[in-house]
Amino acid sequence: MHQIIEPTLLLNKSICKANIKGMAERVKSWKADFRPHFKTHQSAEVAEWFREEGIERITVSSFKMAFYFAQNGWKDITVALTATKINADVINVLASKINLNILVEDEYTIMELENLLQHPVGLFIKVDTGYHRTGVDADDLVKIKKLLNRLRDTKKLIFIGFLTHAGNTYHSDNSKEFIETVELGLEKILALKTFLMDQFPLMQLSWGDTPSCAVYNNFYGIDEFRPGNFVFYDNMQVHIGSCQMSDVAVCMAAPVLAVHPQRNEIVVHAGAVHLSKDRLELADGSSSYGTVVKMNGLNWDVEQILGQVKSLSQEHGIISVSEHLINTIKPGDVLGIIPVHSCLTANLMKQFLCTNGNFIEMLK
Amino acid sequence: MHQIIEPTLLLNKSICKANIKGMAERVKSWKADFRPHFKTHQSAEVAEWFREEGIERITVSSFKMAFYFAQNGWKDITVALTATKINADVINVLASKINLNILVEDEYTIMELENLLQHPVGLFIKVDTGYHRTGVDADDLVKIKKLLNRLRDTKKLIFIGFLTHAGNTYHSDNSKEFIETVELGLEKILALKTFLMDQFPLMQLSWGDTPSCAVYNNFYGIDEFRPGNFVFYDNMQVHIGSCQMSDVAVCMAAPVLAVHPQRNEIVVHAGAVHLSKDRLELADGSSSYGTVVKMNGLNWDVEQILGQVKSLSQEHGIISVSEHLINTIKPGDVLGIIPVHSCLTANLMKQFLCTNGNFIEMLK
Repeated sequence: MHQIIEPTLLLNKSICKANIKGMAERVKSWKADFRPHFKTHQSAEVAEWFREEGIERITVSSFKMAFYFAQNGWKDITVALTATKINADVINVLASKINLNILVEDEYTIMELENLLQHPVGLFIKVDTGYHRTGVDADDLVKIKKLLNRLRDTKKLIFIGFLTHAGNTYHSDNSKEFIETVELGLEKILALKTFLMDQFPLMQLSWGDTPSCAVYNNFYGIDEFRPGNFVFYDNMQVHIGSCQMSDVAVCMAAPVLAVHPQRNEIVVHAGAVHLSKDRLELADGSSSYGTVVKMNGLNWDVEQILGQVKSLSQEHGIISVSEHLINTIKPGDVLGIIPVHSCLTANLMKQFLCTNGNFIEMLK
Repeated sequence: MHQIIEPTLLLNKSICKANIKGMAERVKSWKADFRPHFKTHQSAEVAEWFREEGIERITVSSFKMAFYFAQNGWKDITVALTATKINADVINVLASKINLNILVEDEYTIMELENLLQHPVGLFIKVDTGYHRTGVDADDLVKIKKLLNRLRDTKKLIFIGFLTHAGNTYHSDNSKEFIETVELGLEKILALKTFLMDQFPLMQLSWGDTPSCAVYNNFYGIDEFRPGNFVFYDNMQVHIGSCQMSDVAVCMAAPVLAVHPQRNEIVVHAGAVHLSKDRLELADGSSSYGTVVKMNGLNWDVEQILGQVKSLSQEHGIISVSEHLINTIKPGDVLGIIPVHSCLTANLMKQFLCTNGNFIEMLK
C-alpha cells in the first residue's frame, strides 16, 4: 500500500468512468455530438477512458494542450480559447497533422490569420450568450454578419458555426435562476440558427459548461456539447447541484501537521499550491477551500465529513473541526479534502494517484 | 527577440539581484544570519545569485524542495514546514547528506521521530507569535518547557532554538498596526530567550516574513532571518508597503485575446492557472488579480499602468481599461501583469523568461 507522505491528489477510477459514461449517455440521448473538454484532467491516460466510450473529438483550452493530445493520438481537436494572429505558427503545425478547429471573434484576426495560415482549419465564431467573458454578443447580428461576410472569401478559415460557453450558470443563486440562465443562453444561440440557416445550412451550434449539461434536458437544436469538469466534478459542482458529493472522483490526501485543540483547528499540508485559492461561500457566510473527509487507506468516505478548510496559505490549510473530533486526530494522520475546483487542483498537482495505487501522469 | 505567444512569466535579473543584495545588506546591518526562504523562486539558477552574495544557508517549505536544492549543492537547509513522523524516511536520506533543520511543535512527534531517525538533525520549536497558523503559542511556557524536557534526552533531535513566521504582518491595515504586530511578535519570541537563556545559552531565534524584514529596523536579539518573497516582491508587497512597483522583478506577459469597447474590457490569455486566484482588495472595494502595464519587447513599464485584472477564470483574465486606451489595443498584442502573489504565480508557471531572452528553469 502506498504511504501518503505529502499532499497527493487521489483519483477514483470507477467514479470517474461512471461520470464519463453518464455524460456520454446524456449527450447521446439528445442526439447530439459529444466533444468533451479535456482541460480538467489534462491526462492522456484519463483520455483513453473517453475513447472506450466511443469519443473521438475533443476540446482543449490552449494550443499547448492541443499539442499534447495530438501527440497522444487525438485527431480532431477544438481549441476553445479565442485565437489571434500570434497563434499562426502553432496552428500551421497542428493543422498539418490533425483536424483543428479554432475560435475567432473579430474581423482583424480573421484577416490576419487568413494571410498567415497554410492549411484549412475549422472556425467557430465565439458568441457571448450572457457570460460576458469573450465572444461577440449573440444579439449583435450586425457584427456577426460582418464576420460572416469576411468568412465568405476565406480559403483557410472554414466557417463551421457558433460556439458558446454558458459559464454564467456558475453564478446562479437557485435552480429557477439557473434554468432561466440556461434558457436565455439557448434562446440567443438558437436564434442565430433561425436567422442564418438559409445562408449556412450546415451551421453547427456548440454548447459548453458542466452545470447545464449535467442538469438540463431540453437542448433541442444544439449540435455539439463540450462539458469538461464532469469528469471529476468537485465541491463547486455539488454546491451548484450538478452532482452529489459521492460523484466527485478526486480527493486531496493531506497529511496533518499540527493539532490545536485550544481553537479546534487542524493544520494540514495542503495549501494554495495544491488546492488553488478557489473558494466556496457557505450558507453561514464563511469561506470553504475544501470539505474535509475521513480517509481509509487510499479511499475517502464522503459519509464522514470532518469539517471545512477555512483558510489557505502557500503550503498550509487550516481546518475547523468540532471539539469531539479534534482529539481523535494526530500529527502524521492523513485527511481527505474534496477540492472546490478540481480543474485548478489537478492543474497544480500534475499527477494523480489512483485509489488502486497506480500513478497517472498529466501534461507537465 | 523571443516572441510571446502564450502566457510567459518574465524575470528582470537586475531588479532581482538588487532585491537580493538589498536584503542581504539589511540583515548584515542587524549583525544577524540570513537564511533566505527559497519557496518563492524554487530555482537552482536564481539560487546562484544568492550564493554570489555569500549566502550558504537556506530555508525551504517542503522536503521535496529540500531534495531539489540539496541536489543543486546547498548543504545547510531548514525545512520550514512542521515535520511529523511520516517524514522520517525523507529526513533520514537528507540528513545523511546535508545539515538539515526541521520544525516540530508537539511531544508526540518528538517521540516518534527520535525513534525513527538515523542521523542527528537540528530542531527548531515552531512558535506562534500572533499569526495563529502553526506553532506552540509563544506565551505557553508550560507547553514549551514540556517540549524542552523531552528534547533534553533526544540523541537525534538537537534543539537549536525557536522559529516564528510573523505572517500576521500581511493582515495589517496601516503602518501603525503593522509596527505593533511586528513589535508584539518580537516581544513574545524575545521573552523566550530571556526566560530560557540560562538553560540553553546557545539558543537561536529565527524570524521570517518579507514585510517586516523589508521595513522594520529594530531587530535586536534575533539571530536569523528567513524572508523569501523579497526576491521578486509583488503587488501584495507594494500594497503592504514593503517595496515600490519598480522593485517587482517578475511580470506576466499576457497575449490579448479579445477587445470589448462596449464594456471597456480586454480579455487576455492569463488566468487562474497562470496568475493564481490570490487577489488584492482595492481602495474602491473592487478586487484586483494583477496590475496591467505596458510592454516594450520583453520589458515592462511600471510608469504606464493600463488597468487592473478584475476577474479570472481558468485561462482568461478580464481587464478593465479606460475608454481612451481601449482603441489602442488589438487582439494579439501583449500586455504585462504585475502579479498579486509572485510565490503562487511562479509555482504555477514553473519557468521564467529573463528580459535578456534566456529561460530559467524551476523545480518541476
